[in-house]
Amino acid sequence: MEAQVAMFQLHPRLQADTLEIGRLTLCELRLMNDSRFPWIILVPMREAVTELHQLSVGEQQLLLAESSSVANCLAEMETVEKINVAALGNLVAQFHWHLVGRSRTDPCWPGPVWGCGEAQPYTGEQAEGLILSIRRFLDL
Amino acid sequence: MEAQVAMFQLHPRLQADTLEIGRLTLCELRLMNDSRFPWIILVPMREAVTELHQLSVGEQQLLLAESSSVANCLAEMETVEKINVAALGNLVAQFHWHLVGRSRTDPCWPGPVWGCGEAQPYTGEQAEGLILSIRRFLDL
Repeated sequence: MEAQVAMFQLHPRLQADTLEIGRLTLCELRLMNDSRFPWIILVPMREAVTELHQLSVGEQQLLLAESSSVANCLAEMETVEKINVAALGNLVAQFHWHLVGRSRTDPCWPGPVWGCGEAQPYTGEQAEGLILSIRRFLDL
Repeated sequence: MEAQVAMFQLHPRLQADTLEIGRLTLCELRLMNDSRFPWIILVPMREAVTELHQLSVGEQQLLLAESSSVANCLAEMETVEKINVAALGNLVAQFHWHLVGRSRTDPCWPGPVWGCGEAQPYTGEQAEGLILSIRRFLDL
């Protein structure tokens, strides 16, 4: 597993659009730099995976376990009424798993967030506070 | 488990938008009645589940196993270059899992299919042929 992680490189587009949160066993966690929604991306640290069903059964189970932890973290947030889960990858082929905390008052509700308006980046202070609280919840 | 299945009722909106394929152990499978994409919906036969992380660990694993089988079926189709996976539920709260076979030439590419244009229902013959081939692939 260590050799695989060593080979892992985050796609430059994901790198540019997101902020680092930390690493769980399988996934690197990133915060989408869009203050309109709490939106976390899980990227399994595996080379050349583009589809969910390409992960081994064990990796899929680990992904879901890590996804559940992160979903529980999002569900604790005051504004979150619903969690959208998705792996799309039409633009960035590297497999990545979206968890988006949604609210009936968010600007894209009830539509999907992908392709909806423009991202509104966090201020440095906002991002720092949010990332810190996510790390605390997940014990990172 | 049998009692739970007996209590299960498909949401009327899902019922209206989709065609019956069959049942796996956990999920009822439905074909979205939209000939623009091969689009299958898995609905775990459980009452009052609205979020992925509300399913038990065992149920989540079963969902992923069933999802992988259906994804393999979609991946076999000539037009499918990418599979989008999602649980949104902003409009229909009943938990349901989308698997959508995408192609670079489909009318919504590279955007998401949700909220994109109007569904184009299958003819009876098209739907019958497609459902039959899915059932054969999945041994239903």
